[in-house]
Amino acid sequence: MVASAILPDLATEVLIPAAAVVGIAFAVVQWVLVSKVKLSPERRRGEGSAAASGGAGKDGASECLIEEEEGLNEHNVVAKCAEIQSAISEGATSFLFTEYKYVGLFMGIFAILIFLFLGSVEGFSTKSQPCHYSKDRMCKPALANAIFSTVAFMLGAVTSLVSGFLGMKIATYANARTTLEARKGVGKAFIIAFRSGAVMGFLLAASGLVVLYIAINLFGIYYGDDWEGLFESITGYGLGGSSMALFGRVGGGIYTKAADVGADLVGKVERNIPEDDPRNPAVIADNVGDNVGDIAGMGSDLFGSYAESSCAALVVASISSFGINHEFTPMLYPLLISSIGIIACLITTLFATDFLEIKAVDEIEPALKKQLIISTAVMTVGIALVSWLGLPYTFTIFNFGAQKTVYSWQLFLCVAVGLWAGLIIGFVTEYYTSNAYSPVQDVADSCRTGAATNVIFGLALGYKSVIIPIFAIAFSIFLSFSLAAMYGVAVAALGMLSTIATGLAIDAYGPISDNAGGIAEMAGMSHRIRERTDALDAAGNTTAAIGKGFAIGSAALVSLALFGAFVSRAAISTVDVLTPKVFIGLIVGAMLPYWFSAMTMKSVGSAALKMVEEVRRQFNTIPGLMEGTTKPDYATCVKISTDASIKEMIPPGALVMLTPLIVGIFFGVETLSGLLAGALVSGVQIAISASNTGGAWDNAKKYIEAGASEHARTLGPKGSDCHKAAVIGDTIGDPLKDTSGPSLNILIKLMAVESLVFAPFFATHGGILFKWF
Amino acid sequence: MVASAILPDLATEVLIPAAAVVGIAFAVVQWVLVSKVKLSPERRRGEGSAAASGGAGKDGASECLIEEEEGLNEHNVVAKCAEIQSAISEGATSFLFTEYKYVGLFMGIFAILIFLFLGSVEGFSTKSQPCHYSKDRMCKPALANAIFSTVAFMLGAVTSLVSGFLGMKIATYANARTTLEARKGVGKAFIIAFRSGAVMGFLLAASGLVVLYIAINLFGIYYGDDWEGLFESITGYGLGGSSMALFGRVGGGIYTKAADVGADLVGKVERNIPEDDPRNPAVIADNVGDNVGDIAGMGSDLFGSYAESSCAALVVASISSFGINHEFTPMLYPLLISSIGIIACLITTLFATDFLEIKAVDEIEPALKKQLIISTAVMTVGIALVSWLGLPYTFTIFNFGAQKTVYSWQLFLCVAVGLWAGLIIGFVTEYYTSNAYSPVQDVADSCRTGAATNVIFGLALGYKSVIIPIFAIAFSIFLSFSLAAMYGVAVAALGMLSTIATGLAIDAYGPISDNAGGIAEMAGMSHRIRERTDALDAAGNTTAAIGKGFAIGSAALVSLALFGAFVSRAAISTVDVLTPKVFIGLIVGAMLPYWFSAMTMKSVGSAALKMVEEVRRQFNTIPGLMEGTTKPDYATCVKISTDASIKEMIPPGALVMLTPLIVGIFFGVETLSGLLAGALVSGVQIAISASNTGGAWDNAKKYIEAGASEHARTLGPKGSDCHKAAVIGDTIGDPLKDTSGPSLNILIKLMAVESLVFAPFFATHGGILFKWF
Repeated sequence: MVASAILPDLATEVLIPAAAVVGIAFAVVQWVLVSKVKLSPERRRGEGSAAASGGAGKDGASECLIEEEEGLNEHNVVAKCAEIQSAISEGATSFLFTEYKYVGLFMGIFAILIFLFLGSVEGFSTKSQPCHYSKDRMCKPALANAIFSTVAFMLGAVTSLVSGFLGMKIATYANARTTLEARKGVGKAFIIAFRSGAVMGFLLAASGLVVLYIAINLFGIYYGDDWEGLFESITGYGLGGSSMALFGRVGGGIYTKAADVGADLVGKVERNIPEDDPRNPAVIADNVGDNVGDIAGMGSDLFGSYAESSCAALVVASISSFGINHEFTPMLYPLLISSIGIIACLITTLFATDFLEIKAVDEIEPALKKQLIISTAVMTVGIALVSWLGLPYTFTIFNFGAQKTVYSWQLFLCVAVGLWAGLIIGFVTEYYTSNAYSPVQDVADSCRTGAATNVIFGLALGYKSVIIPIFAIAFSIFLSFSLAAMYGVAVAALGMLSTIATGLAIDAYGPISDNAGGIAEMAGMSHRIRERTDALDAAGNTTAAIGKGFAIGSAALVSLALFGAFVSRAAISTVDVLTPKVFIGLIVGAMLPYWFSAMTMKSVGSAALKMVEEVRRQFNTIPGLMEGTTKPDYATCVKISTDASIKEMIPPGALVMLTPLIVGIFFGVETLSGLLAGALVSGVQIAISASNTGGAWDNAKKYIEAGASEHARTLGPKGSDCHKAAVIGDTIGDPLKDTSGPSLNILIKLMAVESLVFAPFFATHGGILFKWF
Repeated sequence: MVASAILPDLATEVLIPAAAVVGIAFAVVQWVLVSKVKLSPERRRGEGSAAASGGAGKDGASECLIEEEEGLNEHNVVAKCAEIQSAISEGATSFLFTEYKYVGLFMGIFAILIFLFLGSVEGFSTKSQPCHYSKDRMCKPALANAIFSTVAFMLGAVTSLVSGFLGMKIATYANARTTLEARKGVGKAFIIAFRSGAVMGFLLAASGLVVLYIAINLFGIYYGDDWEGLFESITGYGLGGSSMALFGRVGGGIYTKAADVGADLVGKVERNIPEDDPRNPAVIADNVGDNVGDIAGMGSDLFGSYAESSCAALVVASISSFGINHEFTPMLYPLLISSIGIIACLITTLFATDFLEIKAVDEIEPALKKQLIISTAVMTVGIALVSWLGLPYTFTIFNFGAQKTVYSWQLFLCVAVGLWAGLIIGFVTEYYTSNAYSPVQDVADSCRTGAATNVIFGLALGYKSVIIPIFAIAFSIFLSFSLAAMYGVAVAALGMLSTIATGLAIDAYGPISDNAGGIAEMAGMSHRIRERTDALDAAGNTTAAIGKGFAIGSAALVSLALFGAFVSRAAISTVDVLTPKVFIGLIVGAMLPYWFSAMTMKSVGSAALKMVEEVRRQFNTIPGLMEGTTKPDYATCVKISTDASIKEMIPPGALVMLTPLIVGIFFGVETLSGLLAGALVSGVQIAISASNTGGAWDNAKKYIEAGASEHARTLGPKGSDCHKAAVIGDTIGDPLKDTSGPSLNILIKLMAVESLVFAPFFATHGGILFKWF
């Protein structure tokens, strides 16, 4: 009936794993390059002098902070860096292993729940049943779905964990190396930090792809022709990835901000010692936090989005013409997009590390921005290629009960609109959070009249920064939804996430630079080094905000796609706001992000308070601490952050995990669908505004501190009233931008994917409250 | 077919205006009682000494601030009070008259728009047309609808203006009188402040009712049997009332906070002089602001809600069995509810002013709370009575195309659930904003670690305070929607607003007490007087928050009812989230409150900055100002606030007024309905959290200042670091709780009522963008 794709199935079978292998190989190469910077003082000396002679000639002419290389020969400094790095690395590992204990427990319980709930749909029968969408065919029993969903859930969770763990390992491996390279110049330090970020990005993108691919092929052995059942059970992969993101984002977010706020409140405010001062007992915990929050957390969040959007696309495709006619290549179109994405990002990365060179501080931000533009441009060609080769010219897509005819170029538009919307969101975020533009400068300026106006202006900035991203998201949704229903939305999300490797690289670059600065301070390196790492870090703040923008934008699209898949699977054809069941879901759903944010903010507050007490205790009881003659007990602070973050993430985690279950069981699928829609449209706004407000405050403070312009100098210097007001804003922004804001991604995605996985159960046994009355 | 109501039509014709007349008479009596406190020093002396002898014996035993009467004989003080009062009154009047110029212009343009848009529906034809819902009957032409809607719009606007003006007159008339009575004791001062609030409450409730009643009767002469057309055109009344609320709430909100923040930033922060110090040039503007923002603004907001919910109920009733069978008494059920509401509130007021007596400071808040409980209890009986007498036992209600059978007791439940949900919202708001409970105390405690933690805890408190009100609103919506479709939701809103007279009385009481405190300070009265007025004011802060809670809750119900009426009138039967048109409306709608809040916050910022400059200028250029030997130029500050607020309200006002028009014309009714739903569910949350956060910060500051408990004293006194942190929170909260938060009510209501009025036009000519493509 329909023409088939140009690309033969065999080529698809080869291409996808090949791309993943290339991605992993590239990550290994980057890692090897990073590891060439040695942390052992003995060998460092020889290298150092060699670099000194060579480097001086090369960078000698440039004026911005790269004017000279220094301290290359200091044994002490290198040894100290190595020591600090290993403390951070140990702290991070210890957090992760503690987290894994709870994760293991959670995974076990949830795996059992999945199995029981899904198995009970047909009373644990082992007999094949008529298919849901094509009643004339026989499909595998619900029990198979229960088993394979559980396995997919575990696979997703483990992949997320492993990628997060490796990413954090490389990040903590790279931070001290970045500091050391900063002695040679800002350009070298940039490359080390960026390469390390790339390791994380490519590892995650490639492993996410390859595990999904293998799972599909292995599950396919059992499912055979029953693609509907196959891809339904694959959705467990998304749930697994996303559940780990709950731990990564929420737990990590609480950890990082408890340590940060705790360190600042005692250190900066009470003891009047600078940030990252080695005398502060919480300083290692603070640096660990950057890694567990911004690297492992961000990674698991984006991995979750990636896994979910792939699963949402696959489950819709399985009941569209691709699935019905068993067209393998078009069926795996989402995976092909991701494969080509890895290649596109690989090319993009070379521009940062090899084709172009950073010579001055003000080239860092443009270089990172170029990454976004280049990856988007290259990827657009990639999408066109995949859509041309991998899709038949025309096909049908399932659209809430009907089949809708779609052309391959329309699907290209869907993916491309997501990709470009991501770029727009990135740029708008940059505009509102970089101190190169007027919004942040205005916020800095408002510090003249005190902290109150700073906060008012910052909040207003965050609110305002929502406008264009929402229009961009709305436009992509409208286009992709109109062209290819929920499949279109899912591939639009995939489009936005197709450059995930580059996105994660520039995102992870931020905390690595931040850590590098901390290590420079703690190792007692000169102010020049600190200025260089600060410059890297300021750019990193902006890219972190951009990364969060991407994460939120893609979360919105992913949630909608999952929502659509849920509705299809729950067999409801309309979600009519004008019914009481749906409307109360909508308004309560819109409330959930507030509830959740209140919880996460309170969690940060409580955890930070515990940290404050410990830091105060150490300052008061350890003699010689303030004088720098005794070392503080870093490990206790790390432990407090670890324990507090795990404990404090339980209430918000329970809210996310239990709400869909409670609503689905007691109120049924209509109310649940209203709830998901409400949480989605409301949560996106708070997430964007919270992370941009926080980013703006952070950079407003940095703007005053750096004093790079005439205007900035009238506000500074450090310690002026303006600066104090800016510090207050920065502290308020910390939990907003690093905990409660990004955690909302998890709220909206996880509730949607959980509803999707449990949809058959809710549709069969749910809504008991309305059944009773 | 259906049984008719017990109450004969003639009785209804008499009862409604009678209740309104009783309400107005009661207001006049209260006003006369207030006016007995004389502001002319000559007569004051005699009265004063008489009161002194009598009062001392009566209050002598009580310990809390009423221990003695003082200063009754000071000529000077009374004269000064009179002078300050007249300055405030003049400032308020000058603001209102400036506002009216713009209001006049706006009303003119908008009236023409209404006429043109609605007239064009049938091409300005003067011929009768088949009715919309019962095609076999003939209805009046669209041109008549255009004309009468325009007239109703003007009526609603003028009624709102007149009520707001009179309310503000009495408030500025009462403030100095409250100050003078505070010399006799806190109980007397309370009664004066409360009576004045009651004048406002009863005037507004009664005039809103009587004008609507007259309009229905007059329009009825032309429309005759065409009730559908009659009540469609009556919706203009709601639009008129709500449009004025835009000016009152947004313009007034910007005014009050520009003056407040401006006065505080220079006075408290830079010059280190106390609040309400007469040396501060912005002090009169600040006091004027309390009246124009919290009294005129709040009044117009609630009047708008009242008018809109009545109109929404009437328009649905006109196409239900009441309208189809021309049953006059049941048709006017919404007006009967309001009539009995006036009587219930009258009884309730007597408890505050006559039956009970305030003897100590800690009796104020309970007395105000009792008002809420008593009015709700009495009103429940009233609703039962009206539902029994005014409704047939069974009837049908229009439900998006079908007719739904409803029993009179079900309608009773709908009204009662709204009423009681209001009480719950009130109590929850009180819990989160009164410094008698732990949430505010925790926020105050968080000031120990500085302003940043204060802000974080305050924001988290606001987020958390959303939960129960949203469940209460969701429950009322579910019940009323399930029982009687959109008519149920409309009467639930009316139920919540039925005690509007009492609600407004306790709400207006706040700013009057606040002003009284300011006058005491400026007139140089003793600290004891100030402490008494502060105690009144602290209770007033909480009641103001409760009032805002009511306003927001009712706004949510009203908007939904209007939304339902819009959908019915626009002839769409489902609003399916799973269509691209609706979904983009939903997500963009959920963004609008953020955009709007960014605008209003920015407006306050800009207006406050202008004020800061002027206040600084006066301090720098007027010699002897700081020493108190020269008087500042109050009038210029009043003028700056007035001009700035009018200018700054244009962008947010335009956003509200133009969005429905643009979306309706270009994207059509489906997208518009998504937009309304999105704005509603998202706006309610921000409005509640913003006003509670602000209220909590304000009272956390007052908690520290008052130092009434052991805990509070460890945080204080005034000027301590904790107190400074609390002041920062309070300043941030000001625009949140008094401008951007409450303005959101207007956003969600006005967009809904505007869509409703223009629905026939959008349905006929709208959605041109989708028609083109």
